[in-house]
Amino acid sequence: MRIAIDAMGGDNAPGEIIAGALESIDLLTENDELILVGPEDTIKTHLPSRLSGKAKISIVHAPDIITMGETPIESLRKKPKSSIAVIAKLAKRDQADAVISAGNTGACVAAFQMRIRNLPGINRPGIAVVFPTPEGQVTICDVGANIACKPIHLYQYGVMGSIYSKNLLKIDNPRVGIMNIGSEEAKGNEIVKKAREMFKADSRLNFIGNIEGRDIFQGTCDVVVCEGFVGNVILKLTEALVDGLFKAIKYELMEEKLRLAMKFKPVMMRIYKKYDYNEYGGALLLGINGTALICHGSSKSRTIKNAILASKRFYTEKINDKIIDYISSSQLCGSAQDANSRQPA
Amino acid sequence: MRIAIDAMGGDNAPGEIIAGALESIDLLTENDELILVGPEDTIKTHLPSRLSGKAKISIVHAPDIITMGETPIESLRKKPKSSIAVIAKLAKRDQADAVISAGNTGACVAAFQMRIRNLPGINRPGIAVVFPTPEGQVTICDVGANIACKPIHLYQYGVMGSIYSKNLLKIDNPRVGIMNIGSEEAKGNEIVKKAREMFKADSRLNFIGNIEGRDIFQGTCDVVVCEGFVGNVILKLTEALVDGLFKAIKYELMEEKLRLAMKFKPVMMRIYKKYDYNEYGGALLLGINGTALICHGSSKSRTIKNAILASKRFYTEKINDKIIDYISSSQLCGSAQDANSRQPA
Repeated sequence: MRIAIDAMGGDNAPGEIIAGALESIDLLTENDELILVGPEDTIKTHLPSRLSGKAKISIVHAPDIITMGETPIESLRKKPKSSIAVIAKLAKRDQADAVISAGNTGACVAAFQMRIRNLPGINRPGIAVVFPTPEGQVTICDVGANIACKPIHLYQYGVMGSIYSKNLLKIDNPRVGIMNIGSEEAKGNEIVKKAREMFKADSRLNFIGNIEGRDIFQGTCDVVVCEGFVGNVILKLTEALVDGLFKAIKYELMEEKLRLAMKFKPVMMRIYKKYDYNEYGGALLLGINGTALICHGSSKSRTIKNAILASKRFYTEKINDKIIDYISSSQLCGSAQDANSRQPA
Repeated sequence: MRIAIDAMGGDNAPGEIIAGALESIDLLTENDELILVGPEDTIKTHLPSRLSGKAKISIVHAPDIITMGETPIESLRKKPKSSIAVIAKLAKRDQADAVISAGNTGACVAAFQMRIRNLPGINRPGIAVVFPTPEGQVTICDVGANIACKPIHLYQYGVMGSIYSKNLLKIDNPRVGIMNIGSEEAKGNEIVKKAREMFKADSRLNFIGNIEGRDIFQGTCDVVVCEGFVGNVILKLTEALVDGLFKAIKYELMEEKLRLAMKFKPVMMRIYKKYDYNEYGGALLLGINGTALICHGSSKSRTIKNAILASKRFYTEKINDKIIDYISSSQLCGSAQDANSRQPA
């Protein structure tokens, strides 16, 4: 399998990105190849003079970089030789089986959607993240690819999330819930209400109805469907809140007694590790005709290593084939008029 | 001041509600009156035979109850003698200066908006909650009154939130941010983008631009503006996440060592108290021509007591007059065509 990695994406690039690639080498096979994409000279300075390990490593030169603050479409137009644009092109030309970036999320979504295109029958791709919760792993889709959601998009996020949850997280018959402002039938805006009707009409899905913000961490469901705006707020709020609470506890403990704080440290580390998103590598862009992972901007080498392994599992388990099978036999996705649209999110 | 309290609202009604009213009596004056609204016989069984204290207590009979799961508009139509409908009517007839309920939020919003009407120039009321954060008190508006937001609504939430933050939380020149999926100018949907233009055109507001989910707890701003769907998810997610994390820590500590867990308990209690929403009483429905607090369904007596005190501060500080002054002199709120509309959220 050939995995193209944006060596220049994220706050810790290229050091941590290349380190992550190197860490993964021995966990891959001799049939795997990691393609590092970015300015050749820069990448070379971060590689050891002699490479050992099972997987091959190669470099594809991309002189430009799209920074975090740039406007997606405009930056891609201006910088066709940026690392994000180049990994998307590699996938398009079938020179890479998977792409990974910790760079500008909007630019990644736009580039991957434009170049790699959607899976047959899928109208809009969605970003799926897995939240580790005390009650198990919860998949949330979409967390920011699509802020102009239609009911069909939400329905397809539920289908793709369910297939992902079942085949990669090994959750049997995943419970799918739609994010709303109350659990009652009558709640919500028109888009959510119409999507709910679609879910209810699909007997193959284990749809449990409306869920609320509180349900994500309470084991109510395995897959949370929401539009990208709401999902993005959920993702960023959760990360900051967990982080902030741990800091508050640390601060209070230091005030109390330093010795007590030291005793408490291993416990906190254990909890932190359990709920650490770095373990998951990154978020999958579900619904495109390829394998694409978008990692957190603050990704460390461990994040990138885990993203590489996650992309391999996604590819090996043939998740996209399973999505195509499901969608093609769904009566609810008949009108594929705007499926495979070129319009980026 | 006359405060009408829905004695039957919430999971712990009427016991905790009436207990909260009794707890507040000595913190009020002889010019204050608490009007308990609900089935007269039921309320009487929860009152002591002899009432002492400064404020007066009276009962207004309301035989019906709207439960948490009922559809707002339908339930109000079917149950005009429910406690929620009756407190709204008391305010309408100028028989109460403030109304408080821990009952069905949707029914409260609909009843208060229909009966009490909007402030002159305000198009849609919004629910404002105050989040205690390590960096200070953050006001979020709207958290669920309005899920069909227009730019003018968001702008007015910012204005009202700012006035509230300044006059009740005593925050000087409150920083107002609009919830978005990125900090860059180009981000967001059309409604958010248009609202941002309105904010930027208002030199009286301390508008800081886009904020993200992570900013709520990081001291970036004092007032968060968002549409009701997003705000509702934020509110419920935050509550559950804080709760869940404390439970996870407790669990891990018990596993580790019971003695360590006991030592840690007072620290946790201190943090918990700092971030406890019960301290704030409830959420204000900003923008209606009166004083209305909607409390959490799980409100305890302390929550209700604090809500009573909060309603008095809101009334005494003449927050509504300040909102009217601001809006009437704002060039951005000229078209009040759907202001004072009867249409509930």
